[in-house]
Amino acid sequence: MGHAGTIGIVGGGQLGRMLTLAAKPLGYSVVVLDPSDTCPAAQVGAEVITGDLYDAAAIAQLAERVDVVTVEIEHLNTDALADIAAAGVPVHPAPQTIKLIQDKYQQKVFLRDHDIAVPEFAKVDSVQEAHTVLDSFGGSMILKARHGAYDGRGNAVVSAVHELPAAWSRLGGKHLYAEKLVDFDKELSVVVARDRASAVRLYDVVEMAHERNICLEVIAPAQISSTAAQRARTLAKQVAAQLQGAGVFAIEMFLTKTGDVLVNEIAPRVHNSGHHTIESCVTSQFEQHIRAVAGLPLGDVSLRSPAVMVNILGTQDGRPSLDMSDVLRDGHVYVHWYGKAPIKIDRKMGHITAIGGTVQQAKTKARRARKKLAI
Amino acid sequence: MGHAGTIGIVGGGQLGRMLTLAAKPLGYSVVVLDPSDTCPAAQVGAEVITGDLYDAAAIAQLAERVDVVTVEIEHLNTDALADIAAAGVPVHPAPQTIKLIQDKYQQKVFLRDHDIAVPEFAKVDSVQEAHTVLDSFGGSMILKARHGAYDGRGNAVVSAVHELPAAWSRLGGKHLYAEKLVDFDKELSVVVARDRASAVRLYDVVEMAHERNICLEVIAPAQISSTAAQRARTLAKQVAAQLQGAGVFAIEMFLTKTGDVLVNEIAPRVHNSGHHTIESCVTSQFEQHIRAVAGLPLGDVSLRSPAVMVNILGTQDGRPSLDMSDVLRDGHVYVHWYGKAPIKIDRKMGHITAIGGTVQQAKTKARRARKKLAI
Repeated sequence: MGHAGTIGIVGGGQLGRMLTLAAKPLGYSVVVLDPSDTCPAAQVGAEVITGDLYDAAAIAQLAERVDVVTVEIEHLNTDALADIAAAGVPVHPAPQTIKLIQDKYQQKVFLRDHDIAVPEFAKVDSVQEAHTVLDSFGGSMILKARHGAYDGRGNAVVSAVHELPAAWSRLGGKHLYAEKLVDFDKELSVVVARDRASAVRLYDVVEMAHERNICLEVIAPAQISSTAAQRARTLAKQVAAQLQGAGVFAIEMFLTKTGDVLVNEIAPRVHNSGHHTIESCVTSQFEQHIRAVAGLPLGDVSLRSPAVMVNILGTQDGRPSLDMSDVLRDGHVYVHWYGKAPIKIDRKMGHITAIGGTVQQAKTKARRARKKLAI
Repeated sequence: MGHAGTIGIVGGGQLGRMLTLAAKPLGYSVVVLDPSDTCPAAQVGAEVITGDLYDAAAIAQLAERVDVVTVEIEHLNTDALADIAAAGVPVHPAPQTIKLIQDKYQQKVFLRDHDIAVPEFAKVDSVQEAHTVLDSFGGSMILKARHGAYDGRGNAVVSAVHELPAAWSRLGGKHLYAEKLVDFDKELSVVVARDRASAVRLYDVVEMAHERNICLEVIAPAQISSTAAQRARTLAKQVAAQLQGAGVFAIEMFLTKTGDVLVNEIAPRVHNSGHHTIESCVTSQFEQHIRAVAGLPLGDVSLRSPAVMVNILGTQDGRPSLDMSDVLRDGHVYVHWYGKAPIKIDRKMGHITAIGGTVQQAKTKARRARKKLAI
């Protein structure tokens, strides 16, 4: 029934779900590869190929059924993606770009090699090396797993030499690197869309607040000086020019206390910092990504009104019981559940976006709404 | 996976589809009753009970699986709805309101009895009676089937006595009534939402353009005097006060050349005249309906920007081939396909909404977009 074609997505979580919700009105069918046949995307009409995201045969099977393959997550088999691309199935973004981003250390090297400002960082292959780097970074640093980390998993702040061994072993003791801690004022993100002809559009710079390394709140637009915003936009364009393939990317950055902007990391996909666009922008990041990978022209990225998004993280284990009456009594508040069960502590169960005449209005509404949800 | 509950919808066409797309983010599961298991709603994650909308057993089966039953169409078995309501399953809107609306003649009598302005009308049980009425209406009238008519099917304009017998037999020769032709300036619609506590909110008055009795274009807000808009709103409130049960209703009206506003008919459901609300309003009519029937508070109905919606009616029989590039190159244009196949002449295949700084901008974009679609 997808007259416009069929889009394949590796991963059927909340991002795959919101991509599917955007793809259907445009006339596309969606097939996702996901370990669960009741994944969030399946609940909104995506067909599911059940399988592991690192399973080359499953990725090949997905490719056979669709017109274009894209991803909702970077932790997957990029060699298998490269194979299907070589066999003629369009893959967006390019497998080599996803592969580069998978390795946070190589990602940083790549950015530095392209003269893009990043925090100081160094490879550390032993505790001894880590010790040396810690000294050179002034006695504190963040130790990071190069692969597979997300939502703060795989990071450890080290503020003293004696903390090093425990952090080292907690992160598995290999494939690690270190970054100098940035004394940042704010964390920023720019969602960038590239079409198949490499035309680029930038959404407004947003600011992100994290807790326990998990994104908790996104404020659109970022409440920063126009100079800082311009720096972030320039940096985002520099990064976008180095990426390959079509789609939406998020460029996460630090705004330092001295006003510099440094790239923290790139997500080769729709991103939590762009969820607000569903209600706040002319074209949502999800529709934008579908347009980009399907070879359609990009949509307008203008902000229609300020917005604040708050993630709904599980605060307990169990099954959710949702009374939304109190939340929705406040106008301009939107609730998005992802259809996940069970609730787990810090699991992303959904999000709330509030729009307002000002950022402050939206923030008040969004935070009040989050407090009212007993989950 | 619908933590918030399960909503049952009688009918799984495009309205059921757009209701489902709005229900899922709010955390609801959806089950629809529809003759086709590949109906538009099924494609976006609604489960389907396959059956006829007049089949009491199928409606009972739907009721067993859901927390609340609603409808996307008024042509269905209202006695079965009344039975399940009597058995304790909430049904919104109320079965008796749907039943009243099913009979266009009784609907008109009801409105007149409640002092709501309607065009002159009369029951006609024979060609002789029709002849008498035609004379009393000044020689022209519209003959209408009382039941089952939509999109202009079941209507016949009679402008001379000699046209009467053919019109009479074309409409089946029974269960007909006649309305005086209204010399209208514009056709208007007000989408109204009622919550379970009978609180009412009105969307902006829109104007509708029809061709061959099918809605072709909706302009929001209606380009009419503030006096006329106020009359339409007052009338819509009067009507809404007489309806029973929760949900979204559309009140279609005529604005006459002398500035009067008369009610044409009521739809006990989301309506084509409200499709623009997806992009143009704080709360879409679809989310609003879900909120209303689920017992949640109503959302804000404010218009965020002017909008024009154009229906995509099939212009040929066959399978659609969709190249949307040209359409989407124009910013602020949204395409909604309903996943129907095959194309049939005058079948509603989808719609386009354009938003703009002014109605004129939106109209230009929407019409240009429609012309670019070869379907």
